[in-house]
Amino acid sequence: MMNNEVPVLWDEECLNSSIYKDMCNGISAAAAKKQMTAKVYTDCAKLMEDASSDRTVIVIGYESPRLRDNLLRLTGKKKQVILAGLDAERFGSGISSTSPSRRGATAMLIQYLVACKKERIALVACGESSVNDLMRCEILKGYLYTRGCPNPDDAIFFYRERVDESFEAFWEKRENFDAVICPNDYVALCFIRYCEEHGLRVPEDLYVAAFSNRTLSRYCKPSITSMSINFVDVGECSYYAWEFLENHKMEDHQIHITTPSSLIVRESTAYEMHEMDTENAILLDAAHQGGPFYSEPVIANVMHVENCLTQCDALNLKIIQGILNGESYDSIEDRLFLSRSALNYRLKKIFTYAQTQNRKEFESLFRHYFTKENNL
Amino acid sequence: MMNNEVPVLWDEECLNSSIYKDMCNGISAAAAKKQMTAKVYTDCAKLMEDASSDRTVIVIGYESPRLRDNLLRLTGKKKQVILAGLDAERFGSGISSTSPSRRGATAMLIQYLVACKKERIALVACGESSVNDLMRCEILKGYLYTRGCPNPDDAIFFYRERVDESFEAFWEKRENFDAVICPNDYVALCFIRYCEEHGLRVPEDLYVAAFSNRTLSRYCKPSITSMSINFVDVGECSYYAWEFLENHKMEDHQIHITTPSSLIVRESTAYEMHEMDTENAILLDAAHQGGPFYSEPVIANVMHVENCLTQCDALNLKIIQGILNGESYDSIEDRLFLSRSALNYRLKKIFTYAQTQNRKEFESLFRHYFTKENNL
Repeated sequence: MMNNEVPVLWDEECLNSSIYKDMCNGISAAAAKKQMTAKVYTDCAKLMEDASSDRTVIVIGYESPRLRDNLLRLTGKKKQVILAGLDAERFGSGISSTSPSRRGATAMLIQYLVACKKERIALVACGESSVNDLMRCEILKGYLYTRGCPNPDDAIFFYRERVDESFEAFWEKRENFDAVICPNDYVALCFIRYCEEHGLRVPEDLYVAAFSNRTLSRYCKPSITSMSINFVDVGECSYYAWEFLENHKMEDHQIHITTPSSLIVRESTAYEMHEMDTENAILLDAAHQGGPFYSEPVIANVMHVENCLTQCDALNLKIIQGILNGESYDSIEDRLFLSRSALNYRLKKIFTYAQTQNRKEFESLFRHYFTKENNL
Repeated sequence: MMNNEVPVLWDEECLNSSIYKDMCNGISAAAAKKQMTAKVYTDCAKLMEDASSDRTVIVIGYESPRLRDNLLRLTGKKKQVILAGLDAERFGSGISSTSPSRRGATAMLIQYLVACKKERIALVACGESSVNDLMRCEILKGYLYTRGCPNPDDAIFFYRERVDESFEAFWEKRENFDAVICPNDYVALCFIRYCEEHGLRVPEDLYVAAFSNRTLSRYCKPSITSMSINFVDVGECSYYAWEFLENHKMEDHQIHITTPSSLIVRESTAYEMHEMDTENAILLDAAHQGGPFYSEPVIANVMHVENCLTQCDALNLKIIQGILNGESYDSIEDRLFLSRSALNYRLKKIFTYAQTQNRKEFESLFRHYFTKENNL
């Protein structure tokens, strides 16, 4: 393998797909600007023989057991990997990625439908165990929640075995909605056919929009409004990620680059065009971590203990140790060679760190967590 | 603002925290190697007056409504932001981040307990609406599932209002478990006290481990085995992310760097030490997307349609149009100036793309999705 080569492992089964070709073109284009070339392998064993053992590898392929095996082989030899087009956030050490921002795309589609005055939005045909679909649910529910919708869960229609299940469940509640988002164009097309067969017209009675901008979304009737991904861009960023890892040589660190999607407006939303802001407001609201953690009284107390310990120096820790052992202040002064005023000064600080008023309160707080036996 | 300055917005409320100080030191150290200096602001308005309008800003602070407001102000002016120490994967455009890999840390802790032969692992004191806690649940459940555990959900103990709820629920099922993971040291300490009060000894009867390696986990008795984060490293990587965005000027792209955590073994797992592999096997198994999507027959069919359309050139699309209009082959030949053999050659390809044998099968497949009215 030459010094100016970027090793790329490209799953044979994807060699004909236009998405993967676009990514590979992106890698090559970005590499060429730095006088580098992509060297494509279809066989992982061959790549591992050839490639310089410490060089980062870009992997192109879809999620499959073979991809999993290849990733284990590469990372087993401590190779850094960049997955092009797949979100590796949920994978382990040494697996970086470049992928479209699915969260950004979901928020943008919600924002578009709201701009169209279709605020009663449902998500139809979500797979119960699809990580991507669940993420889209979370964002829509977060949005509906901040808009005061009492039951955001009612806007999500899952399927277990047949997608039709979710269409049928939606049909019962269709009066409650102005617009439907489907997780991909395939189910969007099936859903639109289902609506037509039952006498509901898209877009007249219901707007429908989806993700991935597949070829059929352009040709079917009505054509489908969809979020489109620029895979050449994904490829270029994969090269930038490669360069970053090669330059920094950070073992066990990962880098994930997310690329933006663009909205392709078509017949299923009546070709309505709107200017839009960034989708940050939606995402930041939806990302709010609810739950009672910081206000739970047991946890609030133990946080005061932590706050106190963190701010104490070694001498203060010895004072706390004495207090918990039931030692008198006279004895603490003698043991630690402290004057009364020095001890008082330190006690005041210690009690304040723990948000307590005096020795009695302090002892009562700390004894919950530190018995006489402790490691202070 | 000088050319060699990196603007850093540091939430005033965090100025005294050692975590945030470590991050700021990391930023400064990495910047210094490139003859750059961190310029710290505590007031967002002041930063926006001073900082060159197009320069990326590093933000240090914890999740709060003020942080949200600052992010909206900065990104509203199209500024790129890097959050140091917070995972911004779920935020929107222009918000990058550097944070510890929470997934990697969770998988590593599971792997450690398994190496200790404590394979019956529970997760206790998870908040029902905490994104971090839910992620840890997902990884443990994925692991248990691949090990053949029939009901992985039974290993998760949530709380709604009081953490004690989850301790009590665990207590009923304690016979089923050898080890407990808590989402943080605070609840781990409370949980260990609860166990002691009820006569269960840690580590003799039960191993306990947690995340975040707070000061108290070192001093309490038993001291707590915990995953530790190197915040200086997080700060250094925040600078690298800053440099990356400044060099590439990619609008609407985000970069997320994740840093590794290390395991601090203590009394709550009997100081057991083990050599471990990378945690990839656990994460790759847990990340497997289940669900029937690719095998659902309706979706499989529409994918054949997509596959066919994607591979067709303009002439083939016109042939498909003719077929769907019920046009005879003679008429298609005349309209498109094709010889019979040329048409046959193309038909054979078209039918194969759609995984159909002949015109009848092809029409029957396509008519599900394309009525006479279509956009071909």
